[in-house]
Amino acid sequence: MSAGIAGRAAIVGIGQTEFSKESGRSELALATEAVMAALADAGLEPREVDGMATFLMDENPEIEVQRAIGGGELTFFSRVHYGGGAACAVVMQAALAVMGGLADVVVCYRAMNERSGRRFGTGVQGQTPRATTESAHFGWYAPFGLLTPASWVAMQAQRYLHDTGATTEDFGRVSVACRRHAATNPAAWFHGQPITLEDHQASRWIVRPLRLLDCCQESDGGVAVVVTSVERARDLRRPPAVIRAAAQGASDDQQMMTSYYRPGIGDLPEMDLVARQLWKQSGLGPADVQTAVIYDHFTPFVLCQLESFGFCGRGEAKDFVKDGNIELGGGLPINTHGGQLGEAYIHGMNGVVEGVRQVRGTSPNPVAGTEHVLVTAGTGVPTSALLLGRD
Amino acid sequence: MSAGIAGRAAIVGIGQTEFSKESGRSELALATEAVMAALADAGLEPREVDGMATFLMDENPEIEVQRAIGGGELTFFSRVHYGGGAACAVVMQAALAVMGGLADVVVCYRAMNERSGRRFGTGVQGQTPRATTESAHFGWYAPFGLLTPASWVAMQAQRYLHDTGATTEDFGRVSVACRRHAATNPAAWFHGQPITLEDHQASRWIVRPLRLLDCCQESDGGVAVVVTSVERARDLRRPPAVIRAAAQGASDDQQMMTSYYRPGIGDLPEMDLVARQLWKQSGLGPADVQTAVIYDHFTPFVLCQLESFGFCGRGEAKDFVKDGNIELGGGLPINTHGGQLGEAYIHGMNGVVEGVRQVRGTSPNPVAGTEHVLVTAGTGVPTSALLLGRD
Repeated sequence: MSAGIAGRAAIVGIGQTEFSKESGRSELALATEAVMAALADAGLEPREVDGMATFLMDENPEIEVQRAIGGGELTFFSRVHYGGGAACAVVMQAALAVMGGLADVVVCYRAMNERSGRRFGTGVQGQTPRATTESAHFGWYAPFGLLTPASWVAMQAQRYLHDTGATTEDFGRVSVACRRHAATNPAAWFHGQPITLEDHQASRWIVRPLRLLDCCQESDGGVAVVVTSVERARDLRRPPAVIRAAAQGASDDQQMMTSYYRPGIGDLPEMDLVARQLWKQSGLGPADVQTAVIYDHFTPFVLCQLESFGFCGRGEAKDFVKDGNIELGGGLPINTHGGQLGEAYIHGMNGVVEGVRQVRGTSPNPVAGTEHVLVTAGTGVPTSALLLGRD
Repeated sequence: MSAGIAGRAAIVGIGQTEFSKESGRSELALATEAVMAALADAGLEPREVDGMATFLMDENPEIEVQRAIGGGELTFFSRVHYGGGAACAVVMQAALAVMGGLADVVVCYRAMNERSGRRFGTGVQGQTPRATTESAHFGWYAPFGLLTPASWVAMQAQRYLHDTGATTEDFGRVSVACRRHAATNPAAWFHGQPITLEDHQASRWIVRPLRLLDCCQESDGGVAVVVTSVERARDLRRPPAVIRAAAQGASDDQQMMTSYYRPGIGDLPEMDLVARQLWKQSGLGPADVQTAVIYDHFTPFVLCQLESFGFCGRGEAKDFVKDGNIELGGGLPINTHGGQLGEAYIHGMNGVVEGVRQVRGTSPNPVAGTEHVLVTAGTGVPTSALLLGRD
């Protein structure tokens, strides 16, 4: 029926702002800086941009970003819903536009003053009650105190512990790995600040079984990538990060972070669905991936994702993450930029950039011999993922 | 670089609710009814739906609609910004998903209680002031009383009259055509209620040079279409409406309905851009189109669009619309469902459905010998269009 999108487009430029807790600038200024940096990295001019893809939640309209960078006409623009679940889907959108002949140079961006502006960590608290289809399902949970992302994820994390025999130390090993990698990444908020498993276990409860060090940061910042066809990519200044596969997924009976009416609540069927598609599109498997950027707003879902993608069996992530296996030098170093726990929380877009750096060999923590990098998007929500590789 | 999306996918099912001024139901109920109707029309089951595309402004999340219809997993979901400018772009998104192998059966929908709920006609009045990039540009216009869509469009309409020598009677001829067609469409709000040019000229001013009968209705309702590959379409129960071309466009220096800083304000360069793409993708031209659904929230932009697509020369629409040329029996009957002026204002999605009916020969006002139908989306905003044809 279709040739598919695998191997048709590539990421050719990456850009990011400073990651901070108070940018002191508008979100549009952050988006503009990130996009201009990505274009400069690719060696492309703003007037060459003819497509844009961003998050439904992004508050920088495509036409405003285009004007701010000094761009011209757009022949493609799209959005993807579900928070950080859009991080890889926007790149998928760009690849579709390129393969469909609708645009040549597509910019994907996400910029937010998430720490100094609207703090996602506060959840639905303080929001003006409004009876929309979007918010209706929270009516089932809010009366019981499930008001924040941490509270929603804690339900699933507790079940995961029960189902698998994992402990909160296994959650902690994810934090330790991310903070170790952030420590040697000058762009990371937690640069130079590694933690130990003891630090993790001593950090205060947010919502049991989640401790402070299981929860990612709140950040201000902007990130952008530039996508074009593989053919054009070969004429540009950077080695292309070829999009070997790109997929989205929403499970049967999925909700927005509160999917408690599915057969189980301790796994991520939407990410299983994404994983099946990535392997099918690319003809590759977990053994072909040397390093991965695993969405880490909360540590428990990192364990689930390692299982979704088949890096280990169901319930076996607790063994997989031991002995530094997910750290530099281990079998599958993850989140080598420090992840959202260590570098910054830019809704997963900074993870896409790190995936590109690993393909190029320019990561602050390069993994030698990297051929393919898995990048995943937000968990607990309808989501997406990418498989990036060398040309 | 690409085979392009032309001729790869087709609309195989259409569905709509009653069009009213007070649905008495939730927008989700409207969306669900429309989607179920479209699936039934196509002879497809809800469990076969694996993709969804809708408007950024739609308040029915993909996963909620999917649950409501009894659907399962989704492997594609996307949104398009800019109000009614998304009407054809969501179908373009569906075609991309199909050609990219990401989904087999994609539903596009738009449902709103626009008359009984949030009335777009009120514009930015009464909105909570919030300093976002989205709203910032209104700061240049609101102090001068430009608070509503009618006021924004009136600026451009006045310039169009000045530039072309057209009169408000030429605007009125659009209304007369739409209301004539609505009069014989049982689903139209203005069924059985044609108007004369005298009625138009006697209707009250809204914002000069726009009269009441130049402004489309406010409506409650839901509309959906189902898209799949051309190959699969041939096995389904209805004649496919093949997507011969689909394109989006935002002009240089475009704003959201207030693009007053472009070289001219009396034309629609974003629709010119869309038109160039449609003809290029399809290899067709205006002479190959037998009937068109031209987005008609305000009559003046219908004249501009006839020029954008080359049905007549620049400034010559005033001559093109004379003598019933855009009515049944004329050279290019437009809006044979009655348009948004006559049938309902469902952000242009009901126009997509009418385009399909013309291809099938099931329009309430069929145009004999229809091979290709042009459908356009919202004007004054970044927009989109489709060229539909017989298989």
